[in-house]
Amino acid sequence: MGTRRFEAPDNTELDQLYADVAEADLQPLWMLEGLMTTTPDVRPRSHIWRWKDLRPLAERCGELVGISRGGDRRVLSLVNPNLGGKPYATSTLWGAIQYLKPGEVAPAHRHTPGALRFVLEGSGVWTRVEGDAVAMAPGDLVLTPSWVWHEHHNSGDAPMIWFDGLDHPLVDSLDAIFFEPGPDAEVPREVPDRSRSEVLYAAAPGLVPVGERPPAFHSPLYAYRWHDTDRALDQLLLADPSSAVALRFADPTTGGDVMATMRCEMHRLPAGSSTLPTRVVGSSIFVVFSGACTIDLEGVRTTLVAGDMVAVASWSEWSFAATERCDLFRVSDAPVIEALGLSRATTSDH
Amino acid sequence: MGTRRFEAPDNTELDQLYADVAEADLQPLWMLEGLMTTTPDVRPRSHIWRWKDLRPLAERCGELVGISRGGDRRVLSLVNPNLGGKPYATSTLWGAIQYLKPGEVAPAHRHTPGALRFVLEGSGVWTRVEGDAVAMAPGDLVLTPSWVWHEHHNSGDAPMIWFDGLDHPLVDSLDAIFFEPGPDAEVPREVPDRSRSEVLYAAAPGLVPVGERPPAFHSPLYAYRWHDTDRALDQLLLADPSSAVALRFADPTTGGDVMATMRCEMHRLPAGSSTLPTRVVGSSIFVVFSGACTIDLEGVRTTLVAGDMVAVASWSEWSFAATERCDLFRVSDAPVIEALGLSRATTSDH
Amino acid sequence: MGTRRFEAPDNTELDQLYADVAEADLQPLWMLEGLMTTTPDVRPRSHIWRWKDLRPLAERCGELVGISRGGDRRVLSLVNPNLGGKPYATSTLWGAIQYLKPGEVAPAHRHTPGALRFVLEGSGVWTRVEGDAVAMAPGDLVLTPSWVWHEHHNSGDAPMIWFDGLDHPLVDSLDAIFFEPGPDAEVPREVPDRSRSEVLYAAAPGLVPVGERPPAFHSPLYAYRWHDTDRALDQLLLADPSSAVALRFADPTTGGDVMATMRCEMHRLPAGSSTLPTRVVGSSIFVVFSGACTIDLEGVRTTLVAGDMVAVASWSEWSFAATERCDLFRVSDAPVIEALGLSRATTSDH
Amino acid sequence: MGTRRFEAPDNTELDQLYADVAEADLQPLWMLEGLMTTTPDVRPRSHIWRWKDLRPLAERCGELVGISRGGDRRVLSLVNPNLGGKPYATSTLWGAIQYLKPGEVAPAHRHTPGALRFVLEGSGVWTRVEGDAVAMAPGDLVLTPSWVWHEHHNSGDAPMIWFDGLDHPLVDSLDAIFFEPGPDAEVPREVPDRSRSEVLYAAAPGLVPVGERPPAFHSPLYAYRWHDTDRALDQLLLADPSSAVALRFADPTTGGDVMATMRCEMHRLPAGSSTLPTRVVGSSIFVVFSGACTIDLEGVRTTLVAGDMVAVASWSEWSFAATERCDLFRVSDAPVIEALGLSRATTSDH
Repeated sequence: MGTRRFEAPDNTELDQLYADVAEADLQPLWMLEGLMTTTPDVRPRSHIWRWKDLRPLAERCGELVGISRGGDRRVLSLVNPNLGGKPYATSTLWGAIQYLKPGEVAPAHRHTPGALRFVLEGSGVWTRVEGDAVAMAPGDLVLTPSWVWHEHHNSGDAPMIWFDGLDHPLVDSLDAIFFEPGPDAEVPREVPDRSRSEVLYAAAPGLVPVGERPPAFHSPLYAYRWHDTDRALDQLLLADPSSAVALRFADPTTGGDVMATMRCEMHRLPAGSSTLPTRVVGSSIFVVFSGACTIDLEGVRTTLVAGDMVAVASWSEWSFAATERCDLFRVSDAPVIEALGLSRATTSDH
Repeated sequence: MGTRRFEAPDNTELDQLYADVAEADLQPLWMLEGLMTTTPDVRPRSHIWRWKDLRPLAERCGELVGISRGGDRRVLSLVNPNLGGKPYATSTLWGAIQYLKPGEVAPAHRHTPGALRFVLEGSGVWTRVEGDAVAMAPGDLVLTPSWVWHEHHNSGDAPMIWFDGLDHPLVDSLDAIFFEPGPDAEVPREVPDRSRSEVLYAAAPGLVPVGERPPAFHSPLYAYRWHDTDRALDQLLLADPSSAVALRFADPTTGGDVMATMRCEMHRLPAGSSTLPTRVVGSSIFVVFSGACTIDLEGVRTTLVAGDMVAVASWSEWSFAATERCDLFRVSDAPVIEALGLSRATTSDH
Repeated sequence: MGTRRFEAPDNTELDQLYADVAEADLQPLWMLEGLMTTTPDVRPRSHIWRWKDLRPLAERCGELVGISRGGDRRVLSLVNPNLGGKPYATSTLWGAIQYLKPGEVAPAHRHTPGALRFVLEGSGVWTRVEGDAVAMAPGDLVLTPSWVWHEHHNSGDAPMIWFDGLDHPLVDSLDAIFFEPGPDAEVPREVPDRSRSEVLYAAAPGLVPVGERPPAFHSPLYAYRWHDTDRALDQLLLADPSSAVALRFADPTTGGDVMATMRCEMHRLPAGSSTLPTRVVGSSIFVVFSGACTIDLEGVRTTLVAGDMVAVASWSEWSFAATERCDLFRVSDAPVIEALGLSRATTSDH
Repeated sequence: MGTRRFEAPDNTELDQLYADVAEADLQPLWMLEGLMTTTPDVRPRSHIWRWKDLRPLAERCGELVGISRGGDRRVLSLVNPNLGGKPYATSTLWGAIQYLKPGEVAPAHRHTPGALRFVLEGSGVWTRVEGDAVAMAPGDLVLTPSWVWHEHHNSGDAPMIWFDGLDHPLVDSLDAIFFEPGPDAEVPREVPDRSRSEVLYAAAPGLVPVGERPPAFHSPLYAYRWHDTDRALDQLLLADPSSAVALRFADPTTGGDVMATMRCEMHRLPAGSSTLPTRVVGSSIFVVFSGACTIDLEGVRTTLVAGDMVAVASWSEWSFAATERCDLFRVSDAPVIEALGLSRATTSDH
């Protein structure tokens, strides 16, 4: 290299220089460690939460804490212990469980972080999205995208628990959080079986209403029904009943992801099937919806049952093996990674 | 609201609940402050660095610190004092000055964070980008995009100082940092006036070579010359010589931004002109290239001269007024904000 | 204007000039009439074909003409009498009825003109598209896009009649016709209820299989089922049962049209409803699938019943009024007009 | 195949059937010849026009025919003798030469067919495009896209001849011709060196003005200057001075073609160089701007000199060999063929 060798400079001079540099709100790059790493130095390592812990805690919160007390929502957020105490599951994704008891209302508001709900248990709840009442049942995926008014009502007689996925860490890191509380909700007498969103955009695959203008950055379809997802997975399995299959939840008007910031998928692993060890740039949260499996995550094998949740950090290697037929919901930041040209993946056949 | 009123629960019970919640790596949403704010709670407030500080410090580093010691580069990074000591100018942008002395070589490497160089002073330096030697001179914008090999050589007899802009904070927050050191560089005997990149993509406006395949996520043009930028700004001023004008640096094959993560612009403010108070979601760094102006930033007026640098945080209000003709280079994260559907702006005529 | 007045030149000189111009394979623009018209001088005026004529003729062809004699297909093409004898319904669209008897096979071939089938009557037929067996029933829309292998089999015991729509006139005008005969088809023992295309892309609205690569210029979904279309139209009517509704058949992976050259729609007009007089650039063929209505076309009112077909020329004004509930299939060249920037429409409330 | 063998039916019955079919405005597909051909049955074979014929005829028209007489324009259109007498060079492209004498004005109008001008000879002319005065000189490409007001003025003291390329045949085949005459033009006192379009969009490669909204279906840059094109070609040749090079004229804000319907290119063949035999779907017109070459077209070799024009039909094979350095302007319908998914090409190394 063409650089001249330096005499070791007088330490006093150097110390004074570094002091002056700091005083001027500067840092010398060469004194910084770990800025550029061979592979991502991912602080939030992958982490697992157990349904056997989550469910009873949610129930106890339901007994002891009202919604009015709860910042509008009774939510327990997944805290990745490697993220410095922040209520985040990964660097870009918020995961949580939400618990809503019969007769309760989580009042209307909107915020720039986009949210999605994957229902785990219960009945009788509906979410109003931009005025459109959307019924919720286990296995349903319900969207409340960025800056869209939403509120939750439990008109039934059982509590409901769902998984919340948000892009809050990402939107926060972009300093783009806006929030607005809504007016008190009038409770409608009856909730239609199908929301207007479903009437328009889920009538049938590949049919879109003439004359509608869907929104720009998220799916106009606010609910993806378990009945549909379940049947679609079964159909995919017909071709090869012993291999894992997966569906992506898509905007029916563009084929794009449900939001500009989050991708949702449903994976079905037949008993005995497994997936290849995989690493990708970007993070995911997996929620076991039914069945049981093991996950090999960063070299450690763990057994998972329904309701368990796994935060997979960027560039962590994972694979699944189903001990019985197993359905996995996945939310990831893949659309962000792809839009910014940062995609990278390895799939290995160890 | 339909929620039942709660009796104040026994504090012991609540305390035990919260302890158990924390034990399970969870946090109750209702105990968290400031998660959702009316407008962004931007931790890195806007900040200003002065050329009268930057330049002498860079020079002293040149005297005392060699490149070999310098983590490959002699770089002083702008540290926004509101970012907890991180070497970042804003939440998404890295800003720095780099100093390269005659005969020095900053050796080849590549990394997923994209970088751009806006030359402030000096001559005789050229940057090799994917093997293509790109000469550098004051006012030039030179790109070294994500995962592209690059190295800097000073073959002249004067030091060069340039501004470095990187998307490092963003790529780091996405856990997507990869780095690879390059082989030792052979120094080419002579550097062509025009790089191959310029021959292919800067021959003339709107002319693109048949049969070339430009890259997907960044401009194939690695250098935007000050001679061109200067003349283009002058031309824009002809229509109305008293109003500020601005150019965006674009990918000549798509019209998109120079990188998927960063937008670059050059603003020229005629003496006496001013800009309207503006706030946008997303952050910027402004570098005064020539002339003098004042900036009203978050209600505080400051005088700026050539070489001064300003980090403008998301949703901070700013406006400029030129005391003499003034040229401002700007880099921002606008492409990210737009791609994710988070754009918002106010422009007010106070 | 700055033009000089001319003396009337000697006719002999002019005649000689024009003769020399013609000899050189040139024409003087100023001698040409009707090159540039205020509005399109549409040669193929709109035209109507009657089911009471079409059906018996198709049946007689079935009795007298075999498939082997039939250029691979037993097809009667709609001839717009204003198109100089060409077998075209409009300037860009081919329309036809095809008739396939029990036991018959229309053998495999492929061609660059894209084709679609809208089934009018019959059962027991399936079309093999790229090896994928697609069952056909009345009301189904089946695609055989550009350069895709296809063949038709009637394994049932009744004849089937369907409407054929092709972009043949357009592709021919672009000198882009390619054709290839296929190998003799083995008849599969049994045809699955759902084609592979439907398993993958019609499992449910907004669900797309992970890991598939859909084609670039047409929908990967080859069949849109009447059961779905019918139900979707009914759902749209729930909001306002007295107004016409319409669905567009879309590529479920992009939201785009079924082909780059043709748009398909299904319109349902409740009894007593009508549509506003409309003119658009580009042409359409309407096929009455059920019910009865009147069409006001270029100022003439005509009664239509199931099976009737209407070619609507570019810039012709039309409106429908339903005397009883009426379902209309429509194919148009709208994607072409839109892609080339030639869209124009008027809708008037006379 | 599964078709039954037919007894030869009674001819009378068949004759009656065919008569009835024709009476019902139908045609039997199996009686039609040449609908689907193995490769395009291109009616307009390739054709060549000679400058030694074109130029004198244009001059004689200038002497004998005034603009007022000339349908607004003094234009001799290239008539491909294989196109049934239509004034078209290929199935989709209009080619012509236009001749404008000193003091003449071709008055303002607009039409949906897009037009482009490639200047062959002369000086002193400027074209007003949407009010923007655009000077013209030999080698310049000037755009007057679809539905854009335009007029031509010769303020100099020499006549000008340019090549006109239009998408008229295509737009006509889509029944999308609209035309509107403009008001009489006021002649501006002086024409600026650079049009507003060039100030905004041709300031420098990759620089676009902030705050402008370019149009949707064509380049906002109305002039591409020979000075730029010439220099750009020279630069491309530096890498390999003995091989042909080519540039595409692009929309500087999108990288797309100059219009949605036409692609323009400039090819430079060094003396002794040649191109590989090529066939593509879609048609082109080549105009020799300078130098000399031979073209092998459909197996026939012809010598070409400056001003000669060649219409190359779809799927015709062509190659060039330069006897001296040769510059070729090319306009083609490639954007249409590509947008509709009909692209196909062969390049062979005989």
